[in-house]
Amino acid sequence: MDYLFTDRLWKRVEPIWQSYLEHPFVKGIGEGSLNQEKFKHWLKQDYVYLIDYSRLFALGSAKAEDLETMTVFAKLLHGVLDTEMELHRNYAAEFGITAEELEATEPSAITTAYTSYMLNVSQRGGVENVAASVLACEWSYNFIGRSLIDRTPADNFYNSWINLYASDEFSDLAEKCKKLMNKLTAGKPEEDLRRLEDIVVKTSQFEYLFWDMVEKKEEWPVNRIGR
Amino acid sequence: MDYLFTDRLWKRVEPIWQSYLEHPFVKGIGEGSLNQEKFKHWLKQDYVYLIDYSRLFALGSAKAEDLETMTVFAKLLHGVLDTEMELHRNYAAEFGITAEELEATEPSAITTAYTSYMLNVSQRGGVENVAASVLACEWSYNFIGRSLIDRTPADNFYNSWINLYASDEFSDLAEKCKKLMNKLTAGKPEEDLRRLEDIVVKTSQFEYLFWDMVEKKEEWPVNRIGR
Amino acid sequence: MDYLFTDRLWKRVEPIWQSYLEHPFVKGIGEGSLNQEKFKHWLKQDYVYLIDYSRLFALGSAKAEDLETMTVFAKLLHGVLDTEMELHRNYAAEFGITAEELEATEPSAITTAYTSYMLNVSQRGGVENVAASVLACEWSYNFIGRSLIDRTPADNFYNSWINLYASDEFSDLAEKCKKLMNKLTAGKPEEDLRRLEDIVVKTSQFEYLFWDMVEKKEEWPVNRIGR
Amino acid sequence: MDYLFTDRLWKRVEPIWQSYLEHPFVKGIGEGSLNQEKFKHWLKQDYVYLIDYSRLFALGSAKAEDLETMTVFAKLLHGVLDTEMELHRNYAAEFGITAEELEATEPSAITTAYTSYMLNVSQRGGVENVAASVLACEWSYNFIGRSLIDRTPADNFYNSWINLYASDEFSDLAEKCKKLMNKLTAGKPEEDLRRLEDIVVKTSQFEYLFWDMVEKKEEWPVNRIGR
Repeated sequence: MDYLFTDRLWKRVEPIWQSYLEHPFVKGIGEGSLNQEKFKHWLKQDYVYLIDYSRLFALGSAKAEDLETMTVFAKLLHGVLDTEMELHRNYAAEFGITAEELEATEPSAITTAYTSYMLNVSQRGGVENVAASVLACEWSYNFIGRSLIDRTPADNFYNSWINLYASDEFSDLAEKCKKLMNKLTAGKPEEDLRRLEDIVVKTSQFEYLFWDMVEKKEEWPVNRIGR
Repeated sequence: MDYLFTDRLWKRVEPIWQSYLEHPFVKGIGEGSLNQEKFKHWLKQDYVYLIDYSRLFALGSAKAEDLETMTVFAKLLHGVLDTEMELHRNYAAEFGITAEELEATEPSAITTAYTSYMLNVSQRGGVENVAASVLACEWSYNFIGRSLIDRTPADNFYNSWINLYASDEFSDLAEKCKKLMNKLTAGKPEEDLRRLEDIVVKTSQFEYLFWDMVEKKEEWPVNRIGR
Repeated sequence: MDYLFTDRLWKRVEPIWQSYLEHPFVKGIGEGSLNQEKFKHWLKQDYVYLIDYSRLFALGSAKAEDLETMTVFAKLLHGVLDTEMELHRNYAAEFGITAEELEATEPSAITTAYTSYMLNVSQRGGVENVAASVLACEWSYNFIGRSLIDRTPADNFYNSWINLYASDEFSDLAEKCKKLMNKLTAGKPEEDLRRLEDIVVKTSQFEYLFWDMVEKKEEWPVNRIGR
Repeated sequence: MDYLFTDRLWKRVEPIWQSYLEHPFVKGIGEGSLNQEKFKHWLKQDYVYLIDYSRLFALGSAKAEDLETMTVFAKLLHGVLDTEMELHRNYAAEFGITAEELEATEPSAITTAYTSYMLNVSQRGGVENVAASVLACEWSYNFIGRSLIDRTPADNFYNSWINLYASDEFSDLAEKCKKLMNKLTAGKPEEDLRRLEDIVVKTSQFEYLFWDMVEKKEEWPVNRIGR
């Protein structure tokens, strides 16, 4: 193919990601009007999400076909476990939530669904499945951060959040994931590409459901029965 | 432990499974009043569910520690692929749905979530995780079938469905899965048992969400965007 | 590619497989001169080899991308567990070896190495890795059977062995595995093909080491220490 | 159990590890008499061994049941990829071997067998299988280093090698792996322990075969055919 696979993916996911910007939760972050209880729900659910998301980078390192790719995934694993999760812990501390509380969060039905989906396809297939699974999260958070940063008011309570995901460091992370996706799909037949594209579309849909879950502070629809 | 692990599980899942019997979809089957379009949605979603459910038995066969357990899982795999799915195809034919249509069904968000959850924990752990993952589906369908069979009117359109899941053959399947669960947890420490119990509770919750999804004929909440 | 991938593979493996025909163990089978103690060692080691080899078909069924491929692998699993291993048990009974003894055989270092290699690459990658892993065994046994059948004396003690692997049924199995390999590699880029080719070459080398191990009645070079 | 699982393991592996000290390769290192060509063979084979060994730590991180264990494995992964392999590259540079040459080394049959064994059992089971797989290598290298350091002559060419594996840093690594093994087996039934013990014994036997392979500068017994 004489185009980048991520350009092809962009055409599919851009309308889905645009819908995030219209979602009350993301709008609330951009305008600074988001209820802080909802934000805390995000913080907790995203923390346990990141625990499983880390596992994907670990799987990428285990499944990579060459040392260079193994090392890229190992660095991404390190980045989530030691940097991104540390930021969450600091954020949480400001809200009076301890690290223990964060870790003890029960993943909601949607959090469980989303991470299970990525972990299943990543374990079932080769390293390209891992690269496809992790892509939408990194890339779309960067897309959101960069979309919001130009419009956010200067006194927005959530500016540190926006700055984080719009930062050069986070943009680099997203670029690294895109580069990996392109490298690992070079020359692949249409059937393989369609399968990988489907993973990126499905994870983008799960991202939407995740925004919806934190907006509604949902946990398990049936969590009061049998617990 | 001097009790069966499945007795302990029963205490946890029984209230969740009782709630299935109160659910409009299951009630509609029991009374014969269920809208046939909703039933067709179940038929299609359950068919693609069974494709992934089969993979669990295959994983059980791959991960089993002894030849006997491998063979039990291989027979269960055979049972789903060749018997249960054939019954679905026959059922579907009565509704004018072809085998191709069945297989081409896009799994709904809930179907994807549920099967991904089971496939993830089964791949990540040992064979006991597989046994815990498959248990709620086999056992609770048998529970539903046996609960409904005594109350169903003689002319209920759905009696063949009820008879199937209440049948001795299906009861045997459920027993086989329970026996496997007890065998594979013999002597395990509380920490392991709690982890396995959590799998059985979560899959029971997903079962509820599945009944809810077919009742509402849901697919993907965001499936019109970017498709 | 306008050629079959298995034709390309044949060019690589044919010289390795020719060396099997020159190996004292295989020659001894063809001429009927093989020491029966050595044959019994093969019977036991091959039996425990088949237990792990079955796991590969189970993994193929778990990892296949479509129902048709899942079913092919499930049938192959059934074929090994219920037919090929039953033949071994019958054979063993003639030598006074019980099924229990067969199953209790400790896999030799080479048996362990060979099955571990296949199971590792099959778990690590997609379904095409499984197809590549199982190919050399099925195909080369058929090659050996068909090579020996024309030259074997009528009163050869090992004629039932030769007949089995030269039979139409076994040739069909080998063909099924070749067809699967070609289907699952259609359109794949050179990098993927090279990786899969390497699996077929490595398993062919392990096959040679297996013949050597049974000829020498080897177990573990260091198996007396620490046991 | 009121003893440490690693104490039980020690009783099984100690005689096997003692046999390493009697092996010409290890003796040659201890006395400084080892042929440098043999040492280079070790350096290359151990380098590609470490690539696959890293994958085990990555799998441990992916399979761990809690964040603390995930982080321990992630740090061990980092330690091998960034520290131990860097030391190999520096060593190799002194012998005029480039990093590219190191990475391009074809793993010998024994290297392939050993790493395949660990990767297979680690993928097939839960995180305790990973802990059991990595243990013998870390611990026995530390055992060798500490056994040799007291007897080695001051001018021994291989003293930096001995110092590395006898160092406090490496002893800490071995301790970390032992602690993990004990933590992950707490309360496990005898059947599980026996299975895990078998993994530690088998990897110890593979370690012996690895010393033997580097001593004999072996690659693939049949590597000239079909290559």
